[in-house]
Amino acid sequence: MKKEHLYCDFVSNKNTETETQNKSRYYKYKGDFRWQAIKKESYKSPGKDWADIVRQTLIGNHGESVKFHVRYFEIASGGHSSLEMHKHEHVVIGIRGKGICVTGKKKHILNFLDTLYIGPGIVHQLKNPYNEPFGFFCIVNAKRDKPKILSPKPS
Amino acid sequence: MKKEHLYCDFVSNKNTETETQNKSRYYKYKGDFRWQAIKKESYKSPGKDWADIVRQTLIGNHGESVKFHVRYFEIASGGHSSLEMHKHEHVVIGIRGKGICVTGKKKHILNFLDTLYIGPGIVHQLKNPYNEPFGFFCIVNAKRDKPKILSPKPS
Repeated sequence: MKKEHLYCDFVSNKNTETETQNKSRYYKYKGDFRWQAIKKESYKSPGKDWADIVRQTLIGNHGESVKFHVRYFEIASGGHSSLEMHKHEHVVIGIRGKGICVTGKKKHILNFLDTLYIGPGIVHQLKNPYNEPFGFFCIVNAKRDKPKILSPKPS
Repeated sequence: MKKEHLYCDFVSNKNTETETQNKSRYYKYKGDFRWQAIKKESYKSPGKDWADIVRQTLIGNHGESVKFHVRYFEIASGGHSSLEMHKHEHVVIGIRGKGICVTGKKKHILNFLDTLYIGPGIVHQLKNPYNEPFGFFCIVNAKRDKPKILSPKPS
């Protein structure tokens, strides 16, 4: 698998099912934080201090005309996203377990349904220092700028 | 309270807290499907066949620059939204209880985390024929057209 740098708002423009463009779709929740017809996108850990982050794109890569994308991310115990900033905003909603969201000088614990709006240009990072996986929805604009990574790049 | 027609994507452009425009915000979940600092927006039932629908706008009326709005709706037992269509899309994610989503000729039961993308121009309606409240996130474009109501208007 190709190594990729893990932005928490990594841009995926892959349209995996062109025949379903912009049609209504129903994604049944199968339990265990998986949905029917939604692929688990796994990445190898690119650095020694990174744990795997798994993304499932619920809305955004089936040719939808919508102005936003909805993704479910899961950070394994001990893992974190990159410390980064960008012009676009994030909406993060806790779904599984709990995690820590650093936004600027603030630090919030994100539990089930806790909701965080991260404004433009705010340095932020998501961490999971707990024993259980930390899963959350992350909603972003469909058109967005590339994050500026502030944490050391993996060697 | 002023009577309003209940669109499932009712447009609210009220900016209730102008001093917090576009800043990062944390909305702690308090349990019982309520969030700190988020108001419950109640409407009187405008017709004999409507039950109350309650909306909480998590993201969208605090001056955020984001291209989408995130709302939590709850339809009481026996209630439903209007049968309607519009050019903009809906993303609906089941959170509390269960409900029925009619999209075109299809009918889906929406349970916890079941996710529905309703494409542009699709006639749709959300119903709660069950005993418990039906709660769901509904995410829409910030800029969107007004719904065309297909069900009989309340007298």
